[in-house]
Amino acid sequence: MRALTNDLIVKSFRDLQSFIVAELEKIDGKGQFMSDEWFRKEGGGGRTMIMEQGLKIIKGGVAFSQVEGEITAMMREHMTMKGHSFFATGVSIVLHSAHPFHPTMHMNVRYFETDQGDEWFGGGIDLTPIYIDEGLARSFHGSLKRLCDTFSLDSYARFKDWADDYFYLPHRQETRGVGGIFFDHLKPKDVQDKQRIFDFCMDLGRNFPVLYANQSAMHHDSPTEEQLYWQALRWSRYVEYNLLYDRGTRFGIVSNGRTESILLSMPPIATWKYNYHPDEDSLQFQTLRYLKKGLPWV
Amino acid sequence: MRALTNDLIVKSFRDLQSFIVAELEKIDGKGQFMSDEWFRKEGGGGRTMIMEQGLKIIKGGVAFSQVEGEITAMMREHMTMKGHSFFATGVSIVLHSAHPFHPTMHMNVRYFETDQGDEWFGGGIDLTPIYIDEGLARSFHGSLKRLCDTFSLDSYARFKDWADDYFYLPHRQETRGVGGIFFDHLKPKDVQDKQRIFDFCMDLGRNFPVLYANQSAMHHDSPTEEQLYWQALRWSRYVEYNLLYDRGTRFGIVSNGRTESILLSMPPIATWKYNYHPDEDSLQFQTLRYLKKGLPWV
Repeated sequence: MRALTNDLIVKSFRDLQSFIVAELEKIDGKGQFMSDEWFRKEGGGGRTMIMEQGLKIIKGGVAFSQVEGEITAMMREHMTMKGHSFFATGVSIVLHSAHPFHPTMHMNVRYFETDQGDEWFGGGIDLTPIYIDEGLARSFHGSLKRLCDTFSLDSYARFKDWADDYFYLPHRQETRGVGGIFFDHLKPKDVQDKQRIFDFCMDLGRNFPVLYANQSAMHHDSPTEEQLYWQALRWSRYVEYNLLYDRGTRFGIVSNGRTESILLSMPPIATWKYNYHPDEDSLQFQTLRYLKKGLPWV
Repeated sequence: MRALTNDLIVKSFRDLQSFIVAELEKIDGKGQFMSDEWFRKEGGGGRTMIMEQGLKIIKGGVAFSQVEGEITAMMREHMTMKGHSFFATGVSIVLHSAHPFHPTMHMNVRYFETDQGDEWFGGGIDLTPIYIDEGLARSFHGSLKRLCDTFSLDSYARFKDWADDYFYLPHRQETRGVGGIFFDHLKPKDVQDKQRIFDFCMDLGRNFPVLYANQSAMHHDSPTEEQLYWQALRWSRYVEYNLLYDRGTRFGIVSNGRTESILLSMPPIATWKYNYHPDEDSLQFQTLRYLKKGLPWV
């Protein structure tokens, strides 16, 4: 079996971005992605694709990047990386939906290697509904379980727990949404294993559009003011998570990454209200009750 | 000269909060602060006062706190603190104005001590206009210079530069606003010096209402959609600053502080737009040109 080359991983991730963008445009039905190519003076670059004001997607980004360079002191500290130089490539997505009954959804796959022979894959996907619908959450996790089962028998359980822990806001004692799967530092044991982990990442990526389509398929009446307000409140939690905790965001910012691409994950709008507590008989309250680790969605 | 006791500092800071709140209500003319008392199970507590939907102040908080307890590993790391227990008290304010021609303004004074005999004062004030008016920025800095000059001859220059460095968003290459003054770890040399630094902090605090009044005195027509959009964009930078960099916010969050009091600084609303650049002949563009370190406002 031929080893996967970096060139092939890069080409596959770039094609994955193109595939996802084309599928999302079909799903949206109106919005189109605009493309922004950028280069990094230290080496590499990327293609950031953005949709704003689509029918379903109010703000969405699908970013591909491939960067290489020196391992800085900052990277050593934040990513416990050894060696002198690194190579990294990945695709990451955040979509915010126009309608409060449609979710925010995120996915990311990435490959990392250092000049010391270290290499690993990471990634994940998670669903952040504004209003949690139990059926839709189960359907999402069911699809992820099927996807993971083709990779290894225990991976769904492991990666689901990992996502519960990772997509968590300790200061709110809330999960970001209904979770999904998360994995990091998956180190291939050999050439076959590398291909297997890579195939899993590609599978996850190719499944993203249909997963989003399932979550945003239902037609709903125009949202009320109250629903839009709740959407902006929930989005403020997304902002808090990404700026306070998300490793990719924080690492990107402190390592002098491309700000506009990193902050593509920000929602179109966010609102903060002191000590907001919804009525106990509201849908908002129901949603908060689901923002817990360890819920058995499958 | 009698040494300042902690009880006296606490009482003075609490009275300072009451004074500021009463003055701000007069300046606003309509809005009233509601009061939220809280207790910390590890020791101490505070009184958070919030105004929402005032005439001038759309969202404002004036927080007093007095906490004591064990120095945790987190505090050792984030604040390079030594010893076993600490005592801290302070007043902090963030006001967001309803009108885009009125600013966001922040002030903070605090006293810290450890069981190892270490003690220090910190604080600062900074002005974040949505649209920068040169005259108003000069007036603000002029007042701060006069205030600092009564403290020591070189303090304005030192504290102004410190604010330029502190209230800075490296990822945007922007200052947060037109700056102000910032100081930290001011350690008293003796009893007289402690009184002198404390008096300076109290002076700064008592000056806050009139400084805000000066910045929000002008009457303006109802804002346009474009002005409100720019306000929400600028507020998103405020969010980025506070969640990514502000030491008080980050320290408060990671040390399990009271979330609602810490995040009182969040604006009522924020918006993000990919790669937004205002027209070169716009007021927005003029404002961005002023978001630089080292501008000689006095």
